[in-house]
Amino acid sequence: MTRIDDLPIRDELRGKTPYGAPQLDVPVRLNTNENPYPAPDALVRRIAERVAEAARDLNRYPDRDAVRLRAELAGYLSRTTGHPVAPEEVWAANGSNEVLQQLLQAFGGPGRRALGFDPTYSMHSLIARGTGTGWVPGPRTEEFGIDPEAAVAAVHEHRPDIVFVCSPNNPTGTAVDPGTVLALHEAAQRAAPGPRGALVIVDEAYAEFSHRPSLLPLTEGRPLLVISRTMSKAFGAAGLRLGYLAADRAVVDAVQLVRLPYHLSTVTQATALAALEFADTLLGYVEELKAERDRIVAELRAMGCEVTESDANFVQFGRFADVPAVWRRLLDRGVLVRDNGVPGRLRVSTGTRQENDAFLDAVRAVMKEISE
Amino acid sequence: MTRIDDLPIRDELRGKTPYGAPQLDVPVRLNTNENPYPAPDALVRRIAERVAEAARDLNRYPDRDAVRLRAELAGYLSRTTGHPVAPEEVWAANGSNEVLQQLLQAFGGPGRRALGFDPTYSMHSLIARGTGTGWVPGPRTEEFGIDPEAAVAAVHEHRPDIVFVCSPNNPTGTAVDPGTVLALHEAAQRAAPGPRGALVIVDEAYAEFSHRPSLLPLTEGRPLLVISRTMSKAFGAAGLRLGYLAADRAVVDAVQLVRLPYHLSTVTQATALAALEFADTLLGYVEELKAERDRIVAELRAMGCEVTESDANFVQFGRFADVPAVWRRLLDRGVLVRDNGVPGRLRVSTGTRQENDAFLDAVRAVMKEISE
Repeated sequence: MTRIDDLPIRDELRGKTPYGAPQLDVPVRLNTNENPYPAPDALVRRIAERVAEAARDLNRYPDRDAVRLRAELAGYLSRTTGHPVAPEEVWAANGSNEVLQQLLQAFGGPGRRALGFDPTYSMHSLIARGTGTGWVPGPRTEEFGIDPEAAVAAVHEHRPDIVFVCSPNNPTGTAVDPGTVLALHEAAQRAAPGPRGALVIVDEAYAEFSHRPSLLPLTEGRPLLVISRTMSKAFGAAGLRLGYLAADRAVVDAVQLVRLPYHLSTVTQATALAALEFADTLLGYVEELKAERDRIVAELRAMGCEVTESDANFVQFGRFADVPAVWRRLLDRGVLVRDNGVPGRLRVSTGTRQENDAFLDAVRAVMKEISE
Repeated sequence: MTRIDDLPIRDELRGKTPYGAPQLDVPVRLNTNENPYPAPDALVRRIAERVAEAARDLNRYPDRDAVRLRAELAGYLSRTTGHPVAPEEVWAANGSNEVLQQLLQAFGGPGRRALGFDPTYSMHSLIARGTGTGWVPGPRTEEFGIDPEAAVAAVHEHRPDIVFVCSPNNPTGTAVDPGTVLALHEAAQRAAPGPRGALVIVDEAYAEFSHRPSLLPLTEGRPLLVISRTMSKAFGAAGLRLGYLAADRAVVDAVQLVRLPYHLSTVTQATALAALEFADTLLGYVEELKAERDRIVAELRAMGCEVTESDANFVQFGRFADVPAVWRRLLDRGVLVRDNGVPGRLRVSTGTRQENDAFLDAVRAVMKEISE
């Protein structure tokens, strides 16, 4: 039998394992920040309608530039942020992972490096590795925030080609304020290794769940500031794999140099268009989830947990002397949460009210057990 | 206004334009090797059904490993080639472009190089560039075939990490015989720059249209021989973007180290499963297209054209002193074909009988014009 190590794979891949949370079949699955609400029946019907319509021409390649979808996404951003976005300032791909990969293929790559503030969404460094881009970890405060002075100092020290700012940050839930992003952006331009500046990518995958407004208006007059978004969370559409970005149209032109042609299938485009028709309904669910998220924070604190401020649809909590033991005890009670490797902490996604109750009961019981 | 050249994109991208055939609205579009048959009504209904079923759980991430889809693809390959393939020996992604990109991320990349036999599918070299892999063009004969001796000599000279064999080859239509693939595979292992050998990728995107059997059985006992396939052509599903590979399971493990997690959406998986249910119907269309392809070859030859042997769903023909002029004259008659940059030649996709008649009439008229 041939094993992977017998193959001529790249040296940096040797001994690595594929990224991915364990997919376990448990009653309460709160480990991957999915939206707990299934698509409403009317949306399911509309998806079937639009897909059937599109499937008639399945023999033809999809609209390579996803013109209609990008127009609708631009409309959604304009409407929800108050900042006007044109279709030509939007780009879409199979999940924000692919959007970020395309950005790194165009602006990163061998001989270039990206800086991000660990702990953060681990795909940022993995996509950097996958595109041959170096990765430099930047500093966070004790409370998992970004201190502008320390962050700017890191940028001046490492002179990255790309800076990642995840806001709200995964897995901590922490939002970044506009002043910090502006300071980082300015520092990144001044410290840029080349004459044309550095790219700042603000990953707003969880923006709709935040207590604060989107950072999108900061893109105005800053062609090197990119906002990345996804339909996985707020639109309850993790299965759709639809990520997008908003930025200067020159950035959109740049990713088109590296995107695989016809990367976005006809059925994906049709399904995304259907979900966008239901944006108001789906944003209603987001309001419910925000209230539940705030309840989880409050109840965990009432139990004596240390809880990181959250602007996302998940909550980081602790501290635990033995994180894997707590994770396992919760699993034994039918509740799957995520150990993201942050010392002393676990992360729980906001579920339905019932799921959250089950989670809170389980934590309460486990806290009692481990204090005995 | 910011232009793309003002941005800090990678130097090798400067001055480049995005890949893609012109998408013109003309009566007879025979330029992108699409299958001319729309999805039959029963398939459209089945797609809507399966997508609706899958869309209920759209809030959940897709099956990351596409287990069911890979099992069905393995069954299809086993059934149509007579060579047994296990689900673990199959991998699927968003178009064979993404399959090839993942292979090059794992086995190519900076400091490594791929060899392919130009003129060939231009995405091979573009994906090499996009992954930082070097590209070495190998030799073809006057008739666009691969001469085993010359090809083996090129492998020994350039010592590539990856060898691309496209069979049937795009844009020429030329099939490669098993002996040549075996000679190339053996040479690639002997000349490999590292101790673990070199990868040989056989791109069989058009295999179902060939007069000859698939090269898939050659993978037996050769863990570094990979067959790449697509549902775009034979399944009439270019809009679906579903490519796949068959290889040793260690190769499948290797691409999982670089694939973006959850790369294949729930709707794509559902649509592909529906299309696979209709494989027999769709392969019936393939038989019609093969007969039409053979008719195009015969009629073009009868007109005095020089026509390359074709095992694909398209035909390369010429020779023309002024290719762009002939391309334009055909377009003026409402027929869009492809100028792939092969000197003296154009490429026409097989359409419906009516479309092919329109194309043949147009060529006849243009041949008359240019001979006057």
